Amino acid sequence: MKTKFFFITFGVANLEKSVSFYRDGLGWQTDGIVAEDLHDDNTGADGTIAFFKFDNGILLALYERQNLAKDAHIELGSSSATEFSLGYPAESKAEVDSILEHAKAAGAIITAPPHERPWGIYSGYFKDPDGHLWEVVYRP
Amino acid sequence: MKTKFFFITFGVANLEKSVSFYRDGLGWQTDGIVAEDLHDDNTGADGTIAFFKFDNGILLALYERQNLAKDAHIELGSSSATEFSLGYPAESKAEVDSILEHAKAAGAIITAPPHERPWGIYSGYFKDPDGHLWEVVYRP
Repeated sequence: MKTKFFFITFGVANLEKSVSFYRDGLGWQTDGIVAEDLHDDNTGADGTIAFFKFDNGILLALYERQNLAKDAHIELGSSSATEFSLGYPAESKAEVDSILEHAKAAGAIITAPPHERPWGIYSGYFKDPDGHLWEVVYRP
Repeated sequence: MKTKFFFITFGVANLEKSVSFYRDGLGWQTDGIVAEDLHDDNTGADGTIAFFKFDNGILLALYERQNLAKDAHIELGSSSATEFSLGYPAESKAEVDSILEHAKAAGAIITAPPHERPWGIYSGYFKDPDGHLWEVVYRP
């Protein structure tokens, strides 16, 4: 099995609210909510989803947690911020600070103000409206 | 704020067990557990971590959930499989089936056997030892 992936799906509580955070708050481009007319009779999951494309071509999908549970045939779990985090690359300490301020202004919660960590990075964390963690990192 | 990221960190319960799943079970390359000697006095987080590199250069980090909670300065959450999923690209329906079988043999749980979904893909899901979801997808 090769070491690869081509999309990340965030399970969200309220799709419109989460799309608004990434599109309007962070300024990321999207065609908005799509596939609202599709439904999988096999699983009960709706198609309703929104996509954003990262610079490296990877897709970020926002999909309601209840649909992800149906699509994957698992129990609906609650939100958990310690499940994973994504690393956002910054080019300086000042950029780490300004990105965290930008995210905060967009409605994110700064959980950890930036500081130098002993593994050679300067970073801080924010949580999106569903608790998904982003670590903003400057690596000299 | 640009649309980018450069690593994904999975919060795990037992680092050695999770490293074993990805390294020995799926056959992915890693230098193993590193930075065991590093500790952040500011947050209380240990450096102890393991990295895998995806084909696109993105890093996958396995990091104990309790360290992620300390590093991000949040409450330690429980495992939640509906928090996110990663999409693994397959080149045929047969490859989807064989990858799911491979993951199962490595100790993963198949939550959803593969089938045709009305949004134009053939896919199934497995959970890693911590419940992290992978959707194995063939998109004609």
